[in-house]
Amino acid sequence: MVKELQEKKKIKQESILVKKNENFSEWYREVIIKSELADYSEVSGCIVFRPLAYAIWETIRSETEKRLKKIGIETVYFPLLIPEKLLSKEAEHVKGFSPEVAWVTEAGNSKLKEKLAIRPTSETIMYPSYSKWIRSWRDLPLRLNQWNNVVRWEFKHPTLFLRSREFLWNEGHTVFATKEEAEKERNQIFEIYQEITSKYLALPGILGKKSQKEKFAGAVASYSIEHLMPDGKAIQGPDFHNDGQNFAKAFDISFVDKNNRKQYAWQNTWAITTREIGVMIATHGDDKGLIIPPKVAPTQVVIIPIFTKKMLNSKVLDEAKKIEQKIESSVKVKLDNRVEYTPGWKFNEWELKGVPLRIEIGPRDIAKKQVILVRRDTGEKKTVKINNILIEIVKNLDSIQNDLYSKAKKILKDNIHKVKDYGEFEKILETKGGFLQVCWCGETACEEKIKEQTGAKLTNIPFEQGKIFSDCIYCRKKAKLIVNFAKSY
Amino acid sequence: MVKELQEKKKIKQESILVKKNENFSEWYREVIIKSELADYSEVSGCIVFRPLAYAIWETIRSETEKRLKKIGIETVYFPLLIPEKLLSKEAEHVKGFSPEVAWVTEAGNSKLKEKLAIRPTSETIMYPSYSKWIRSWRDLPLRLNQWNNVVRWEFKHPTLFLRSREFLWNEGHTVFATKEEAEKERNQIFEIYQEITSKYLALPGILGKKSQKEKFAGAVASYSIEHLMPDGKAIQGPDFHNDGQNFAKAFDISFVDKNNRKQYAWQNTWAITTREIGVMIATHGDDKGLIIPPKVAPTQVVIIPIFTKKMLNSKVLDEAKKIEQKIESSVKVKLDNRVEYTPGWKFNEWELKGVPLRIEIGPRDIAKKQVILVRRDTGEKKTVKINNILIEIVKNLDSIQNDLYSKAKKILKDNIHKVKDYGEFEKILETKGGFLQVCWCGETACEEKIKEQTGAKLTNIPFEQGKIFSDCIYCRKKAKLIVNFAKSY
Repeated sequence: MVKELQEKKKIKQESILVKKNENFSEWYREVIIKSELADYSEVSGCIVFRPLAYAIWETIRSETEKRLKKIGIETVYFPLLIPEKLLSKEAEHVKGFSPEVAWVTEAGNSKLKEKLAIRPTSETIMYPSYSKWIRSWRDLPLRLNQWNNVVRWEFKHPTLFLRSREFLWNEGHTVFATKEEAEKERNQIFEIYQEITSKYLALPGILGKKSQKEKFAGAVASYSIEHLMPDGKAIQGPDFHNDGQNFAKAFDISFVDKNNRKQYAWQNTWAITTREIGVMIATHGDDKGLIIPPKVAPTQVVIIPIFTKKMLNSKVLDEAKKIEQKIESSVKVKLDNRVEYTPGWKFNEWELKGVPLRIEIGPRDIAKKQVILVRRDTGEKKTVKINNILIEIVKNLDSIQNDLYSKAKKILKDNIHKVKDYGEFEKILETKGGFLQVCWCGETACEEKIKEQTGAKLTNIPFEQGKIFSDCIYCRKKAKLIVNFAKSY
Repeated sequence: MVKELQEKKKIKQESILVKKNENFSEWYREVIIKSELADYSEVSGCIVFRPLAYAIWETIRSETEKRLKKIGIETVYFPLLIPEKLLSKEAEHVKGFSPEVAWVTEAGNSKLKEKLAIRPTSETIMYPSYSKWIRSWRDLPLRLNQWNNVVRWEFKHPTLFLRSREFLWNEGHTVFATKEEAEKERNQIFEIYQEITSKYLALPGILGKKSQKEKFAGAVASYSIEHLMPDGKAIQGPDFHNDGQNFAKAFDISFVDKNNRKQYAWQNTWAITTREIGVMIATHGDDKGLIIPPKVAPTQVVIIPIFTKKMLNSKVLDEAKKIEQKIESSVKVKLDNRVEYTPGWKFNEWELKGVPLRIEIGPRDIAKKQVILVRRDTGEKKTVKINNILIEIVKNLDSIQNDLYSKAKKILKDNIHKVKDYGEFEKILETKGGFLQVCWCGETACEEKIKEQTGAKLTNIPFEQGKIFSDCIYCRKKAKLIVNFAKSY
C-alpha cells in the first residue's frame, strides 16, 4: 500500500538537503516547504499560508494596525470586485495593471453584462465612495486602510511569498485638503513601516524615492524601502505613493473649502505585503532551516524534556511543566512532551521551524537545578539556573532579535558598492551583485539604457544623499543625484 | 454649483425618517447608511464596510479567534481561487454551490485554460492539501480555520449584511481520526459561537439541527443558531456541519492508523459571518438609529462638553479632557470637542451611531462636581458625581449589555408559537410570524409541502426538545420531533 510506505518515510526526519550559499533558490523553497511554513496550492502561483506563516503575518498586521490607529487611521473593507469601467478611469493606472488582471466574466450559468476585475489594488473601487462621502472641508482628512487579498496574474515565474499571484497586504488610502498635509503623512507611515521591518522582522532596508520610470501606475511620486536578498538581488519592501490630484480629478474627489470654493483633494496610498515574510526567511535562515526573529515568532521558546519512550521520566516532565507555567505569561512557549519522538528528533524539528530559543532539561539538570539554553541563531549553549530562567530567556531573546538585525545590516552595508565607472558597474554587478551606488544625471534615458544593457534597475534614490562623487555613470554629463541600481526580484 | 448646494444640505442633521415598526426594511437601510456604518458600492450586491462596521467585525473576529486558539485551532490562509475540476469533486457540494459561483475565465488578455471559481466556501481548495499533509495518525487531529472573503453570486434581492454577494466569515475545517472525536467538537464550537452571539452581540438564538433538506451541500448533518428578526422572519446565524467521510472519500483524506491500516478521516466545518452585524443592527436599533451593545462598540462612551462656538468654555473643555484621561484605560471613550457643531447636533449624531453611553458636562455641572450620564438604549438620564464616574460607567455599560440581551430574549420567547393545527399554523404565520413550533413526523415530504404551501421553511430541530404535543402538523401521522418553521431570510 502506497500510504504505508509514505508513513514509514514520514517518520524519517525532514532536513534541508541544499546549502543556502550553494543554491539559494532551491534552499529557499526547501526551507519553506519542509518547515511547514507554507505550501504550494492547486492553483498555479498561489500559495497556502500554513499556521506558522499566518501567525507571522498576524503579528505584522496587528502591530502595524495598532500604530496606524494611533495616528488616526481607521480600518474598512471594500468589495473584492471592480467593474471594468471603473478600473479604466485613471489612464496610467489601468495601463499599469490591466495586463495582469484576473477577470470574472460569468456567474452561475450566466454571462455578466460587464466584466469584473478581481482587485489588483483598490483605488478604483474605493474612490467612487470617497467622491460621494467627501463634500466639505469638514469631511477631511479621510484616512482609511484595509487588510485584504489582491490578485495580480503575473506570467513571470512565481516564487513563494516573493512573487505570488494572490497575496495579502494592507492598502492605506488617504485624502487631504492640501498638498502639504498629504506630503507630511509620508514620514508618519514610513516610521511605522520601518519599525515593523527593522524592529520586528529584523530587516534593514534603504529608504528612498522611486524614479519616474519605476513609480506606481497613477502616482505623482513613489517611495520605498528596498531590501537585499542573499543572492545579491534587491527586492522592494513597503511603499508609499503620493498621488497628487490624479485620482481626485479622475474620480471627482472634491470638497467645498472654508471659503465656499470647490477644490480637488490630495491623496496618498501605501502598503506592506506578505512578501516581507519571504524576505525574512531568506535573510535570516541557515542550512538547518528557518530562523524567526523573536518578536514575530509564534513560538519563542521550546522546552524539550530529555527522555525516551522507553525511559519516560515523569520527574523531568513535571519540572518541564513547572518551567512552562513559570514563563508562559511572559514569553510564547511550547512544551514538546510527545513520547513518540526522541529528543534529538525534536531538536532538529524545532531548529527547522526556526524557534529562537530551546530549553533542554534532563535528569542531571534537575539535580543541579539548572537547564541548558540553546540559541537557534548561533547554536550557543548555556547552562542557566532555574531560578534565573525568565530573566535569562528575555535577555537571550533580546540578543537574538538585535543580533539578527545587526548581522543583516552589516551584510547590507557590505553590499552597497559605490561605483564611478560604467565598466566597473557592469563587472561588480556580475561578480558581486548587491546595490550599485552611482551618480546619475536624472534622465530616464540613461536609466533605461542601463537597464537594457545590464538588467539592473534603479531601485530608489536614497533619502540619505551624501555628496555627488562623479559625473552621471552612463552619459558622463553633470550628475544631480546619488541612486542605487540592482538586479531585482 | 452642485457641490455647494450639497454642502449646505450636509450640515443639516441626518436623521431616520422612517419608523422601525412601520417599515422595517426601509428603516434598516436608512439606519445603516445614515449612521455611516456601511454603504452600497459600485458592484451590485456588494457592500462597503465603513470603520464602524469593520470595528464591530474586528471584535467578533478577535474574540472568536482567541477562543478558537485556546481549544487548539490554528489560523491559516488558502487561495481565493478554485480550479473547476476541484470544485466538482464532491457531487452534492458542487450541485449546491455552482448556481452562484463567480467564474474567472480571463487573465490579462488571455483566456484561461481552466475556469477558476472565486471561493464560495473553501472545502475543495483546502482538502487536496489536507490529503497531502495527512499521512499518519500522528498528523491528526488537524484543526485549521481561516478568516476571509467569499463570493456567492445570488440572484435574489440583496440586503445589506444579510444577503450580500461578498461577505466576510471564518471557516473552520477540522479532521479527526474517529467519528466520536469529530462529533465532540460540535459542543466546543457552539459554546464559542453562543458566547459571541449572546454575550457580545446580545443576540439570543435557537440552537438545533438542520433537517436533511436544509443541511449544507456535502454534509452528513448541519447544525445552526437561528435568530429572529424584528419583521418576524427567521435568519440563520453561525452553523456547524458534520461532513462524516464524504469529503474524505472524494479527496482521499486518509491516514495510516496505529495498526498500520488505511482509514478515511472524519471532518467538520463551521462558520460565523458578517451577517451577524445585520442581525445586531436590526434587533437592537430604534427610531433614533443604531444601538450597539457595549462589548462590541468601538466607542462605548462619548463625552460632550456643553458649549457653543460663540460661548466656548475652556473650563468645561478642560474638565471633559480630565474625565477622558481618567477613564480611557478602562473604557473606549471619545471626547467630541468639535466647535463647529452644537451640543444638540452631537447628541443626535452619536445617538444615530449607537454609542451606548453619553456624558454631558456643562458649566453648572462643574460647579457641582458632577456630570449627566445618558443611556442610549432607554434614554434614561442620571446625575453622577465625577468622583464615582468610572464605577458608574462600568455599571451602566454592564446593564445596557444585559438589558439588550434580556429584551431580545423576551421578544424571541414571545414569538415562538406552539401550534398543533395546520389551519392555525397558516393563520399565525400570516398574522404574527415568528417561529412556529410544531410536531413533525420526520418526513421530507411533509416539510416540502409546508414550504410550498406557506413559504415557511424548517429552520431547525431545537436541541431542547421537550415532549411531543401532537401528531405531525401536516400528515397527522405519529410525530417524532418538535421543530420550528418560519419565513426566513
